[in-house]
Amino acid sequence: MTWQAAVAGASGYAGGEVLRLLLGHPEIEIGALTGGGNAGRSLGELQPHLVPLADRVLRDTSARTLAGHDVVFLALPHGQSAAVAEALGPDVVVVDCGADFRLRDPGAWEAFYGSPHAGTWPYGLPELPGARAALKGSSRIAVPGCYPTAVTLALFPAFAAGLVEPDVVVVAASGTSGAGRAPKPHLLGSEVMGAMSPYGVGGVHRHTPEMVQNLTEVAGEPVTVSFTPTLAPMTRGILATCSAPARPGATARSVRDAYAQALEGEPFVRLLPEGQWPSTAAVHGSNTALVQVALDGAAGRVVAISAIDNLTKGTAGGAVQSLNIALGIPEGTGLSTIGVAP
Amino acid sequence: MTWQAAVAGASGYAGGEVLRLLLGHPEIEIGALTGGGNAGRSLGELQPHLVPLADRVLRDTSARTLAGHDVVFLALPHGQSAAVAEALGPDVVVVDCGADFRLRDPGAWEAFYGSPHAGTWPYGLPELPGARAALKGSSRIAVPGCYPTAVTLALFPAFAAGLVEPDVVVVAASGTSGAGRAPKPHLLGSEVMGAMSPYGVGGVHRHTPEMVQNLTEVAGEPVTVSFTPTLAPMTRGILATCSAPARPGATARSVRDAYAQALEGEPFVRLLPEGQWPSTAAVHGSNTALVQVALDGAAGRVVAISAIDNLTKGTAGGAVQSLNIALGIPEGTGLSTIGVAP
Amino acid sequence: MTWQAAVAGASGYAGGEVLRLLLGHPEIEIGALTGGGNAGRSLGELQPHLVPLADRVLRDTSARTLAGHDVVFLALPHGQSAAVAEALGPDVVVVDCGADFRLRDPGAWEAFYGSPHAGTWPYGLPELPGARAALKGSSRIAVPGCYPTAVTLALFPAFAAGLVEPDVVVVAASGTSGAGRAPKPHLLGSEVMGAMSPYGVGGVHRHTPEMVQNLTEVAGEPVTVSFTPTLAPMTRGILATCSAPARPGATARSVRDAYAQALEGEPFVRLLPEGQWPSTAAVHGSNTALVQVALDGAAGRVVAISAIDNLTKGTAGGAVQSLNIALGIPEGTGLSTIGVAP
Amino acid sequence: MTWQAAVAGASGYAGGEVLRLLLGHPEIEIGALTGGGNAGRSLGELQPHLVPLADRVLRDTSARTLAGHDVVFLALPHGQSAAVAEALGPDVVVVDCGADFRLRDPGAWEAFYGSPHAGTWPYGLPELPGARAALKGSSRIAVPGCYPTAVTLALFPAFAAGLVEPDVVVVAASGTSGAGRAPKPHLLGSEVMGAMSPYGVGGVHRHTPEMVQNLTEVAGEPVTVSFTPTLAPMTRGILATCSAPARPGATARSVRDAYAQALEGEPFVRLLPEGQWPSTAAVHGSNTALVQVALDGAAGRVVAISAIDNLTKGTAGGAVQSLNIALGIPEGTGLSTIGVAP
Repeated sequence: MTWQAAVAGASGYAGGEVLRLLLGHPEIEIGALTGGGNAGRSLGELQPHLVPLADRVLRDTSARTLAGHDVVFLALPHGQSAAVAEALGPDVVVVDCGADFRLRDPGAWEAFYGSPHAGTWPYGLPELPGARAALKGSSRIAVPGCYPTAVTLALFPAFAAGLVEPDVVVVAASGTSGAGRAPKPHLLGSEVMGAMSPYGVGGVHRHTPEMVQNLTEVAGEPVTVSFTPTLAPMTRGILATCSAPARPGATARSVRDAYAQALEGEPFVRLLPEGQWPSTAAVHGSNTALVQVALDGAAGRVVAISAIDNLTKGTAGGAVQSLNIALGIPEGTGLSTIGVAP
Repeated sequence: MTWQAAVAGASGYAGGEVLRLLLGHPEIEIGALTGGGNAGRSLGELQPHLVPLADRVLRDTSARTLAGHDVVFLALPHGQSAAVAEALGPDVVVVDCGADFRLRDPGAWEAFYGSPHAGTWPYGLPELPGARAALKGSSRIAVPGCYPTAVTLALFPAFAAGLVEPDVVVVAASGTSGAGRAPKPHLLGSEVMGAMSPYGVGGVHRHTPEMVQNLTEVAGEPVTVSFTPTLAPMTRGILATCSAPARPGATARSVRDAYAQALEGEPFVRLLPEGQWPSTAAVHGSNTALVQVALDGAAGRVVAISAIDNLTKGTAGGAVQSLNIALGIPEGTGLSTIGVAP
Repeated sequence: MTWQAAVAGASGYAGGEVLRLLLGHPEIEIGALTGGGNAGRSLGELQPHLVPLADRVLRDTSARTLAGHDVVFLALPHGQSAAVAEALGPDVVVVDCGADFRLRDPGAWEAFYGSPHAGTWPYGLPELPGARAALKGSSRIAVPGCYPTAVTLALFPAFAAGLVEPDVVVVAASGTSGAGRAPKPHLLGSEVMGAMSPYGVGGVHRHTPEMVQNLTEVAGEPVTVSFTPTLAPMTRGILATCSAPARPGATARSVRDAYAQALEGEPFVRLLPEGQWPSTAAVHGSNTALVQVALDGAAGRVVAISAIDNLTKGTAGGAVQSLNIALGIPEGTGLSTIGVAP
Repeated sequence: MTWQAAVAGASGYAGGEVLRLLLGHPEIEIGALTGGGNAGRSLGELQPHLVPLADRVLRDTSARTLAGHDVVFLALPHGQSAAVAEALGPDVVVVDCGADFRLRDPGAWEAFYGSPHAGTWPYGLPELPGARAALKGSSRIAVPGCYPTAVTLALFPAFAAGLVEPDVVVVAASGTSGAGRAPKPHLLGSEVMGAMSPYGVGGVHRHTPEMVQNLTEVAGEPVTVSFTPTLAPMTRGILATCSAPARPGATARSVRDAYAQALEGEPFVRLLPEGQWPSTAAVHGSNTALVQVALDGAAGRVVAISAIDNLTKGTAGGAVQSLNIALGIPEGTGLSTIGVAP
């Protein structure tokens, strides 16, 4: 069987990555492509790497242009998904790459996004305990944020095994594609090359409550997260360095075992052999998350590090993986574990 | 049918890229992996992006380890291929990513490589007139150099149509992976980031006679090439800016038409729409060559520019494309035209 | 004696570099700083690297705010300098980093800039024969374009010695700061990192007639220039690869001698020892131009390559060097030959 | 008065940066330059950015070549400084850019470096309480590590004011020059561009005990540090993201005040205005440390971030600053607060 999929926001980085993956997905046929201010322009001009779609012309993003598809990917600015999803009807599988339906706590949503809460959809991080069951057959999917994906995959095994205190510190470096394609002065190449720079420091980044939600759910108790994102001079990739105080009794062995057990069989998460640490370069363009963990005895902390491609596993790849589950087809269809390196 | 393929030099960049492509090739099964000084080490340690092969262990490069395969890829330092190929016998399809069998003129070989000429194999640039016929059924393939691939694809249409004088100037920028993985001081990240630097200036780069050979063949008269390679601060990609004096009567229209005609139907070369110029970013990881051409009336020159990924279309992708032809299977099997961008 | 200098366009990259150099200039005191849309903002916010000026507040660019200074640097968009200069009066030394007063041929100006020609000022490339005499005591200076600076320094010795035909091919790679600070989609970090991309191909780049003017003057006959600029993934630097057909009788020795003689004693141009080629990294932040030349006998061309920092020697450093001459103080005051590397 | 200075290890990155600064230091004359395996080569070949020293030839590193100078900078691999210093005699001012004399605790030295402890010299971080007094007149200076410089400057104000618990988490990103110039596979440009990668995770990095020593001294109680260094795709710069649990009573106001007070008057540390965060790009080539701090109420942590140039403030600049104090000349002589950006 083949599903027809439309992509709203096809001129942005997330939309482009969704298309890159759908072009290799044997069960999906690419339908309408839409993009706000770029309607009328050819995709060849906007996304020259998507050669097979070069002659496609973008349409406006509306209920009319998105109608008649089995699946609709939304790669829109935050706050725009609810209205579009509403118009699509319950039979269409809607995959929202934006933030609108990720949080369960309306208060957290309003505190961080400053607008009314639109609701909560099944959360597209299949590796989280219980997530696959919720996704199966669902016609609505909330794709996780890129940072929460990296952080949750790095830390959930430690919380699932009760090895750490619920007091997390995360410092993550992201490639610039995570900041989107709207031209802003601080995202110019001249500004970002040669520069590591933090932003959203002090607990104000919007991905913070999403990390709290995920880890709290796994821990079974409230988890706090001190999260500092930084912008790195590369186009893609997130390296998330995460730590939490080790609980009494945690040993290098027990930590390693907990990770091995929690991640066993996961098709897109690889616990590296001891002594090897993840690099974003190794997951460039792939749906793999590389994870490693260590116990720092002197500091009394478990340090877990993950590397993902923010556009693939962190957005479009996670979206397709979750969609596959929702559609009932093999979870890895159209996805690759192989990075493009060097 | 499935072919068993071995890869000699699997720990280098060319060998790694061959493996990345073979992992997605439905007709090929990956056999022995060998690598000189890295024999005994796991591929997961050396090529962490090739996740499905992480547990494979490298063997030494020898007739013994390479025996018993249908296809053998050689990604070895120049000068080592002949002995290995000799030992493999005529039934094995040998694909040499090195330079040893590219040149027809023993004098040119000896002048640029300083060793006895090993011979000449069918040349793996299918887009060159006559090349597909020579490759079909061949059990030996000389994969072109990365720069000659980019330059030949940019200029052969102009020579085929007789539009330019045989007096070519090429300045090409390459990503650092083209210089290989052996650690040398000038290839350190600290040296190459922020740096554009020329090398092999003044006609001494070893890819020069290969460009001369290709263009001379198409032109039907001796072509000279002034070639200046430069190292650019990026991992992959070649941007080749090529020009030659326009012959009387050449017009913007006739130049455009000649390129459109010469490149029509080529699955892996895309002549961009007028006004759009190629960028290496758009072909990152893909087997596509993007080409554009202009006539500079004031300077009296045809300027043709191509962008390729030096490791894919410039090495491993070109190798697989040629192998497919040799094996008699569809030319694009296991290859993609889609880049990983941004 | 100390001169008071104002800088118009202090929030841009050229203006910022002028300020960086003036902060180290013992004879100049920094006066008013102005910047169109950024008036009212602090320099610390816009140019955080200029720590000593962090508390300065930008004013609007007008005759009123620029009045009362001995020297005014204009780092404005093309076409805005004439009106400002007019209002400043003939006693003020005006240093225009824009293009408005570089070209002598009104027809060339109008063909490439599409507006009426504003006039011609003494040209701030001191190394050009005759340039220092014209600059001395002048109250108007037209700072050369960054590409013409690099290309002229690479080629004028060959033309001065009559060693080459007047038929030049230039391919130059520039860092992104040369494209300015106005946010445009193709200048985003996500677009430029990992990318080499040409622009203004086919003789249409506005710096072309300036190169033609300079080289024609030195050659004493009309010179044509085929110029292809490319954008490189780095913030600063130009590497200009220039070539022209060698005239009969030119030898490696005569070429080398001509360069040694033409560049001898130049404080900011260094002819590298034979065998060493320039890299942009070595001139990062310095006013040095590194030059090397070779004779390609097979191709019959002289290949000359220069590396400069487009913001320093290519703009602000060249401006200060020329200003020093105009003011009658030592030419190197406030300038450094030392790059910041690696 | 003028001092004669020799530099041992002049072919490395630290040695090159020492020379870059000494070239602009009015009280120091550059004497012998030495470099192990590079003895006999010209500096122009090895450090082409140091144009005024291009013709200098490196000598071997020995008591003989270093004799007869007032000041000797040692930029040698760890473990080599003691023998050289011994031979120089007590009248020579020896500035050791290596680690040998930084730690006071022989046990910590032996645990992390695996060799006998050589001793302890006055510590060249002038901003630490008491450091200037110890440096004044000293003929031995232990230059701090680059990471400890960044981390100590970010956190000492919080500890001096008693605002945080002695339980620190640091994640720092460094440019590749911090890893030195010896060619290693993982430092190739092809490996580091596009890559964020951690190393020395879990408390094993050798700079950890130095951070512990500094912060413990300021805190007056034992401080633990969980330190994760990461390699970033840039040549220079360290961004250190540091945090510790806020003590009861700490408020945004009290934290800000503590930093303002502790850093007031420091010539090379700038506390940024509220809302502005440091970037490594702004300190490229300068001796400035940019610092900012925030209180994350929800996570209960003080987050302090610093940006330095690892080669300047983090090595050679800190060395010169400390030397100036030792020699009794103005602390900022030969140093600049101005970065080279963009």
